[in-house]
Amino acid sequence: MPSNTPVTPLVPKEGWHVMHLFYDVDHSAWSLLGEDEKRAAKTRLTELVQEIRATKDTHLLTYAIATPKADIGFMLLTPDLHVATAYEKQLTLSLGPDILTPVYSYLSQTERSEYTTTREQYGAETLIAEKGLTEGSEEYGKALAEFDDRMAHYLKHRLYPVLPDWPAICFYPMSKRRTGADNWYSLSFKERAELMSGHARVGRTYSGRILQLITGSTGLDEYEWGVTLLAKDTMDIKAIVYEMRFDEVSARYAEFGDFYIGMQLPLDELFRRVCL
Amino acid sequence: MPSNTPVTPLVPKEGWHVMHLFYDVDHSAWSLLGEDEKRAAKTRLTELVQEIRATKDTHLLTYAIATPKADIGFMLLTPDLHVATAYEKQLTLSLGPDILTPVYSYLSQTERSEYTTTREQYGAETLIAEKGLTEGSEEYGKALAEFDDRMAHYLKHRLYPVLPDWPAICFYPMSKRRTGADNWYSLSFKERAELMSGHARVGRTYSGRILQLITGSTGLDEYEWGVTLLAKDTMDIKAIVYEMRFDEVSARYAEFGDFYIGMQLPLDELFRRVCL
Amino acid sequence: MPSNTPVTPLVPKEGWHVMHLFYDVDHSAWSLLGEDEKRAAKTRLTELVQEIRATKDTHLLTYAIATPKADIGFMLLTPDLHVATAYEKQLTLSLGPDILTPVYSYLSQTERSEYTTTREQYGAETLIAEKGLTEGSEEYGKALAEFDDRMAHYLKHRLYPVLPDWPAICFYPMSKRRTGADNWYSLSFKERAELMSGHARVGRTYSGRILQLITGSTGLDEYEWGVTLLAKDTMDIKAIVYEMRFDEVSARYAEFGDFYIGMQLPLDELFRRVCL
Amino acid sequence: MPSNTPVTPLVPKEGWHVMHLFYDVDHSAWSLLGEDEKRAAKTRLTELVQEIRATKDTHLLTYAIATPKADIGFMLLTPDLHVATAYEKQLTLSLGPDILTPVYSYLSQTERSEYTTTREQYGAETLIAEKGLTEGSEEYGKALAEFDDRMAHYLKHRLYPVLPDWPAICFYPMSKRRTGADNWYSLSFKERAELMSGHARVGRTYSGRILQLITGSTGLDEYEWGVTLLAKDTMDIKAIVYEMRFDEVSARYAEFGDFYIGMQLPLDELFRRVCL
Amino acid sequence: MPSNTPVTPLVPKEGWHVMHLFYDVDHSAWSLLGEDEKRAAKTRLTELVQEIRATKDTHLLTYAIATPKADIGFMLLTPDLHVATAYEKQLTLSLGPDILTPVYSYLSQTERSEYTTTREQYGAETLIAEKGLTEGSEEYGKALAEFDDRMAHYLKHRLYPVLPDWPAICFYPMSKRRTGADNWYSLSFKERAELMSGHARVGRTYSGRILQLITGSTGLDEYEWGVTLLAKDTMDIKAIVYEMRFDEVSARYAEFGDFYIGMQLPLDELFRRVCL
Repeated sequence: MPSNTPVTPLVPKEGWHVMHLFYDVDHSAWSLLGEDEKRAAKTRLTELVQEIRATKDTHLLTYAIATPKADIGFMLLTPDLHVATAYEKQLTLSLGPDILTPVYSYLSQTERSEYTTTREQYGAETLIAEKGLTEGSEEYGKALAEFDDRMAHYLKHRLYPVLPDWPAICFYPMSKRRTGADNWYSLSFKERAELMSGHARVGRTYSGRILQLITGSTGLDEYEWGVTLLAKDTMDIKAIVYEMRFDEVSARYAEFGDFYIGMQLPLDELFRRVCL
Repeated sequence: MPSNTPVTPLVPKEGWHVMHLFYDVDHSAWSLLGEDEKRAAKTRLTELVQEIRATKDTHLLTYAIATPKADIGFMLLTPDLHVATAYEKQLTLSLGPDILTPVYSYLSQTERSEYTTTREQYGAETLIAEKGLTEGSEEYGKALAEFDDRMAHYLKHRLYPVLPDWPAICFYPMSKRRTGADNWYSLSFKERAELMSGHARVGRTYSGRILQLITGSTGLDEYEWGVTLLAKDTMDIKAIVYEMRFDEVSARYAEFGDFYIGMQLPLDELFRRVCL
Repeated sequence: MPSNTPVTPLVPKEGWHVMHLFYDVDHSAWSLLGEDEKRAAKTRLTELVQEIRATKDTHLLTYAIATPKADIGFMLLTPDLHVATAYEKQLTLSLGPDILTPVYSYLSQTERSEYTTTREQYGAETLIAEKGLTEGSEEYGKALAEFDDRMAHYLKHRLYPVLPDWPAICFYPMSKRRTGADNWYSLSFKERAELMSGHARVGRTYSGRILQLITGSTGLDEYEWGVTLLAKDTMDIKAIVYEMRFDEVSARYAEFGDFYIGMQLPLDELFRRVCL
Repeated sequence: MPSNTPVTPLVPKEGWHVMHLFYDVDHSAWSLLGEDEKRAAKTRLTELVQEIRATKDTHLLTYAIATPKADIGFMLLTPDLHVATAYEKQLTLSLGPDILTPVYSYLSQTERSEYTTTREQYGAETLIAEKGLTEGSEEYGKALAEFDDRMAHYLKHRLYPVLPDWPAICFYPMSKRRTGADNWYSLSFKERAELMSGHARVGRTYSGRILQLITGSTGLDEYEWGVTLLAKDTMDIKAIVYEMRFDEVSARYAEFGDFYIGMQLPLDELFRRVCL
Repeated sequence: MPSNTPVTPLVPKEGWHVMHLFYDVDHSAWSLLGEDEKRAAKTRLTELVQEIRATKDTHLLTYAIATPKADIGFMLLTPDLHVATAYEKQLTLSLGPDILTPVYSYLSQTERSEYTTTREQYGAETLIAEKGLTEGSEEYGKALAEFDDRMAHYLKHRLYPVLPDWPAICFYPMSKRRTGADNWYSLSFKERAELMSGHARVGRTYSGRILQLITGSTGLDEYEWGVTLLAKDTMDIKAIVYEMRFDEVSARYAEFGDFYIGMQLPLDELFRRVCL
């Protein structure tokens, strides 16, 4: 628990707050520090990262960003917005008052998908029908239970995700379009659900290669969702985003922000990578 | 009354001027101050906040902003634009000449809603009809009076709002669209009033959880309205903005600026939160 | 006449050059000056303002800007572009080399309206017909002469305006739209003149409360016109811009830049307002 | 020939490279220089300008920019891109390492117009027909020769322009639109040639008052063309750009960048104008 | 291999990572260095460039950028994203902590073209038919083999390009449009392949004069592709980009970012060019 948070937490009814934080390193200011100050600064950030990771239900990913678009990226997941903000202000200052310069940031919340909340939306009945199971039979019941497990597991991943340490990480914000004939918010729920299920089908073909986390930010930041992709190969990131662009959901209805590509690294390697 | 305002006030015929002010803290400049100077700076801001809050018909909300998008937010409501501007310039300088760096600001005025000014628009007759009251009866008269009270109360909240100390605060500016077939300003008053009443219905389902204040800024700042949402849970902010986006008023006619999420905090906790 | 202008003036065949200048005050640099230097700087600006106002056919409005969008605004009207530019460079430097930081500026020229150049466009005949005057009669001739006077007065105000010292001032740039079916420049002169006359009718209902000056900037700056509104109440600024937005000229054909709201102040009060 | 260019020139098959360079003067840095350093700096720029103007086939215009949008503008025309870039880097540094701050720049090439390359496009036959000349007659031959001269002269002006010292200069970049039904690049050559000939007709009515130079920048900079206008009166600049906007080529197909208005001045007057 | 890269490489299944890096030189900071420090800085960058070029499968182009848009450009091609990022951070710092200021950068990957992967797409059958070869004959087989060679060569150039030292280099990013009726991602593969083949035909007419490399960046950076053009004459760059703009693929479906024009130079000439 950071020292600069008040007593009453600001925790959503379900899910966590998520912050994506991107910084440049001001090497000009850094070069003015002595060796002892540099060591102390790095120790301070290291201890802060340890403290954050030791906080209940709190996760922090640290990574280097490719190209001078940014140097260092953090992804922070924690229930209480007070705690998230307190840690965020401390992270910004951890290496000294003018070393980390924020270049982009994003606030969102984990959320359940509104399109995958019922057995029907998961396609339970179709699958059971394909297996030729009789309604009411023991196998039928087992298949249903299996579905419910999968749904619960998926929901838990959406609301309380534990992200793997895959090397490549991609973040981008996105909104659904509201222009002329391409107005996502004028479609019926059924139309949207059908479009989203096609999108999900593409996503499943990347299972095991791409882990995708969609977090909601309508009313919280400038786009409506944040998308975090973890991968073992940047080619898979390019491939899934490109393939999905042909899907009607993206082709006609998606507006994308900028893309940030990072590499998960332990802090000591991250320091070396950005020449600290 | 701030010392740097002239004699003749600039007060609108009705309502107040409203300023939303968002600042970054320049910790590099702050770190150059001695402990005494820091204490004096915080005292100066604290006393200024007290002075502002002691000014007639004047309110000031203070809050921390989530993500490095900004650090500190103020919302200032006061009748006289001279007073508002004088306080705003003083707030900017209160911690020293280069500590608070403005990152965004917004000027608007409280205003009555043009769509909820008559008993009909409030749905008085429908409700009375539903209750089966006879026109001219005592109950009928009481029901009408009750409506008039509600209207007066609502109008007072719109023009002279007293905002609760709910922890979460969201601000965003918005305009109505004028593009091709989606041109709000080409609609008749009746069409607009009907669309707005649907919008208001969604708003009422969040009663007690979301307090919404719409202030007008056409001709005053880059968008046409400022929206301030107060909430006890950021999830409700996300929910109401998301739900309203499906409403035709937003889906077809709304253009949104950026969203700023803050947490109301007393000054001492705010200082700690932003590491001052 | 400023010292840094050449012999040959650059004066338009009719009308004046107009500059709107908006500055931030760099209080960090200002705080480094001693009290004597500060006093000398303010004297320098004061004397420059006096010199500008003493220049033939030259006007200068000075005002404080609301919100940290800017601190100080100047509106300069003068025939010769050499003189305008020379004064503008001097105004920028008047308080010292790094005190006033330009945040926005706009170059335009006063110009006659192409839509109100004939008696017909002013509606002379309609009015005379309404009065039941016989063509050729003395009253008829007087009514016509009255019209010609009004037209000459209006034209003089457009080309060589003398602006009142009303407290509130609003500036915004605008262009006419050229997108798809909403292409102002594809309309005939007659269509444009009719649309503009409706616009002018709205404007006249604010007579005595709003003074509006339209200056042309096609080919001179990023929009096609600059609009300056002077008012006694900011609510009237909001009201006229909002009401005009429903007019087809604005609803379908107008693109607006940002809006700057200021308060006309004598220099000593202006200095106090922006904490100099 | 600047000292920092290699042996092998990078000269287009025909025409010259053109750079438009716009700078702010950093008066804060300038004020730190002693009187000797200031004099030396101005001498350095003066000598560089002389050297550039003495270079073969090389022209340099120097001017002051109106409004704080910029202070100083250069227009450089020279065949070799190595030479252009070498001079440009030297111009930027000529007054010292941090005095001239680039605020905008533009790279283009002089090019022949694809729409005025044949006698037909110049309207030779129409004119000759109007004169009632018999094909094959001596007068007919003389008229044709006259046309060829005019075409050669025009072509030379397009590819190797010598610009007059008219006081007012305007620069803006532009592209042709590719949106929906207004897609210039989907039109046939014939359609484009016809539209352009109307445009040229407007241009010719400003002959002697406006000198226009169109340079190509597709693939070289963010717009497709750069437009340079020289005039004796800024009102003519406003008039021609406004009048052309009603032409279908501009009304439906043109996208404009920002406009920069300058005044040609000899260096010593330019220094005085921008308070150096 | 740079010292600041971890053990496990991040190499795509095929192709290389590509970074385009554009920097301004901060001559103000540079002027504070002594002659020895300047010499040491240039030696450091020179040795780093040598180290990068000595790394397996790694290429680095160095060039000066025209106009103050940027001063120095690097194009780095290397398989491992860790190595690319490590070198990129070192390049940024090579001249000292505040000499090279990044102004733009772009991350992409070499990739095979999805539209030229089969003999049919290369037009093998058409060509063979034109030669009148009998299927199954020896000549037929030789012609097919020749095609396969050409395809293999082309694929190798796309995935593992070795770029010539032609003097002019142009970089721009681009995306395919998804607006209204002009939605590239709603077209069928067949439609897209046909449109692309017309595009390729134009490209082939510039063979020997323009070398074009298309790299993919969907999901990696803000546009979907990066385009690098190498040329012997900047006029050819202007000509090919202009000519292609009339092609339906560009006219209706392309959105372009900004264009950066550079001149390949050895480091010592590059230093002189940018006045280091």
